[in-house]
Amino acid sequence: MGVHRCRMCQADSVINMRQHRLALCEVHFVEWVEKMTLSFIKKQKMFEPEDRILVAVSGGKDSLSLWQILLKLGYQADGLYIDLGIDDGCDYSKRSGEYVRNFSQNISSEAQLHVLDLAGVYGKTVAEMAERRKGGRKKLCSVCGLVKRHEMNRVARELGYNVLATGHNLDDEAAVLFGNVLHWESEYLLRQSPVLPADGLGLVKKAKPLARFYERETAAYAIVCNIDYILDECPFSVGATSLRLKEVLNSMENNSSGTKLQFYFSFLRAKKDSQFPECKRSELSSCEKCGQATGAPGMCAFCRLV
Amino acid sequence: MGVHRCRMCQADSVINMRQHRLALCEVHFVEWVEKMTLSFIKKQKMFEPEDRILVAVSGGKDSLSLWQILLKLGYQADGLYIDLGIDDGCDYSKRSGEYVRNFSQNISSEAQLHVLDLAGVYGKTVAEMAERRKGGRKKLCSVCGLVKRHEMNRVARELGYNVLATGHNLDDEAAVLFGNVLHWESEYLLRQSPVLPADGLGLVKKAKPLARFYERETAAYAIVCNIDYILDECPFSVGATSLRLKEVLNSMENNSSGTKLQFYFSFLRAKKDSQFPECKRSELSSCEKCGQATGAPGMCAFCRLV
Repeated sequence: MGVHRCRMCQADSVINMRQHRLALCEVHFVEWVEKMTLSFIKKQKMFEPEDRILVAVSGGKDSLSLWQILLKLGYQADGLYIDLGIDDGCDYSKRSGEYVRNFSQNISSEAQLHVLDLAGVYGKTVAEMAERRKGGRKKLCSVCGLVKRHEMNRVARELGYNVLATGHNLDDEAAVLFGNVLHWESEYLLRQSPVLPADGLGLVKKAKPLARFYERETAAYAIVCNIDYILDECPFSVGATSLRLKEVLNSMENNSSGTKLQFYFSFLRAKKDSQFPECKRSELSSCEKCGQATGAPGMCAFCRLV
Repeated sequence: MGVHRCRMCQADSVINMRQHRLALCEVHFVEWVEKMTLSFIKKQKMFEPEDRILVAVSGGKDSLSLWQILLKLGYQADGLYIDLGIDDGCDYSKRSGEYVRNFSQNISSEAQLHVLDLAGVYGKTVAEMAERRKGGRKKLCSVCGLVKRHEMNRVARELGYNVLATGHNLDDEAAVLFGNVLHWESEYLLRQSPVLPADGLGLVKKAKPLARFYERETAAYAIVCNIDYILDECPFSVGATSLRLKEVLNSMENNSSGTKLQFYFSFLRAKKDSQFPECKRSELSSCEKCGQATGAPGMCAFCRLV
C-alpha cells in the first residue's frame, strides 16, 4: 500500500476512505467531518441553531465526538449520561461515566452534563430490571434499549429540550437496517430514519447526525481530536446479533468498498421517493402512568417493567 | 452429532433439515419434497394440470429435479435446453447438454425435450455475443441472463406453452433478494416473486416451483433419486456477485438456522400484505423486431444485442 496524500494539501494523510476515494490529513479530515455533519443536519432538517439539543452520551467515541462537533458547529447541545449500573466485573458503567465527566470538564463551559443514575431513581440497575424477564443476555439488551429510549425522552421533555441527538454511526444504522430486512420488519423499516419528528404524544424529535459516517471515521475523528473515550464494548454485548450483522457487513465492505454506504443511502432514497412500504403504523396512545407515547394499551412497556 | 431418525418411520435419516427441525429417510424425504412442491404450486397459483409447462433445463440438479417432480405430480411438462456454446476449455455446454439428453431419455416417453442451439440460430455463442460489450465476466453473466430470458420466452410462445418454469431454489432467490436490498432496487423488489403472471405483451407466465427449497435440499433430492447432473458451476461464474452473496447468506445460516427461509418468506409476506413499495413499474411496449415486452423504446435489449 502506497502512502496516500491529503487531497486538499498533499500532506501525509491520516485516513484513506476508499468508499469516498478520499484521503485526508488530520486538519482536513477534522474539517471534512464537521462540514459533512453540518450538511447532513441541514439536508435532513434535523435542527436549527435555536433548538435546544440533548446529546445522549455513553462515554464511547461516537457520542462524545457528536457532542464536540455540535458544540463546534455552534449548536446548543447539552449532554445526558445514563448510569445503567453495568458492572459485570469490569466496572463498565462507572468507567464510562468517568470518561463522560472528564470530557465534559474540558469542553465549552456553557454546555451542561446531566447524569441520570438509574438505580438511584428506580432502585434497580438495568441488569436487575432485566432479571425478571426470561431470555438471558438477549433480553438484557432489549430491556436496556427500552430503558434508554424511555429515559432519554423523559429527561429531554422534563428539561425542555426539543431534540434528542444520538451518536449512531453508519455501521450501527446499516446493521439495524440489515436486521430489519432479514425479517422484513415493515414497521421498523418505515420508522428507520436519521431524523424522526416529534409526535403529539410526548416523543421529542430524534436525530442521528453521524449516521453518514463509518465507525472507522468516527473513531479516527475521536483519536485525531484527542477525545479520550472508553474502548471496551459493553460486556453484555458479546454475541449480540447486531455485532454479528456488523461483521457480515464488514466482510462485504472489504470485498467491495462502499457497500454499507450504498445499502443505507439507497434505502433512504427509496423511502424518500415513496417507493416504500405503505404500512400502517400501529396506533399510539399515551401511557397512563408516564404520559409518553406507547403502542400498548394502558401502561407503556417501561412503566410495566419498572 | 447423533444419528437423526426419520420423523415419519424412525429409520436412519438421509437428511436433517435444521431450519425445519425435520429429519427424514430417503423415502419420506422424496415424498416430502414432492408434496411441498405441490402445495407451493397451488398456494402460489403457479399452474393447473391443464397448463402446458416448459421447464428450462440446464443439466444441473435444480432444473432436472424440477422436471422430474412436475412429471411425477402429473403435470404436462416438456424441457427446453439452450446450448449457449460455453466451452472455456471444459466443454461446459456440451457436457451439460449430454446430462439433459440422458435424463430426458429415461423419463416419461410423453415428455419432450427441445434443444435450442444459440450459435446455430444466431451464428454466435453467448460469449461471442458478450464480446461486443465492455465489462468482462460480469457483462458476460448479464448478457447470458438476457439471452436466456429472451429465448426461453420466445420458444415458449412459439411452441404454445403457457407457463415457463425454472429451477431456482431458495439460495438463488435469497441471493437475488439480498442483492436487490443492498442497492434497494425497488422495481426489482416489486417484481421478485415465485410466480409472475403473463402480461399482454408477449411475456408468458413464469414460475419457480422449487423456490422454497434450500440448495442442499434440491441436491439431496437429485442424489436420492439418482438424477445424474452436472456438478460443475458455469466456468464464467467464478467470482460472480451472486456467489459471494450466497456465501454471506450461508455463513449467516450456519450461525442461525432458517435465516434464508425467514429472509425470503418474510419478504413475500410483506409484499402480499401490501406493506410494500408502491413503485411504478416502467411502462412496457412491444419490441418492434421480436414483439416481446421491453422497457426500451424501439427494439428490445436482446434484438439490439443480436
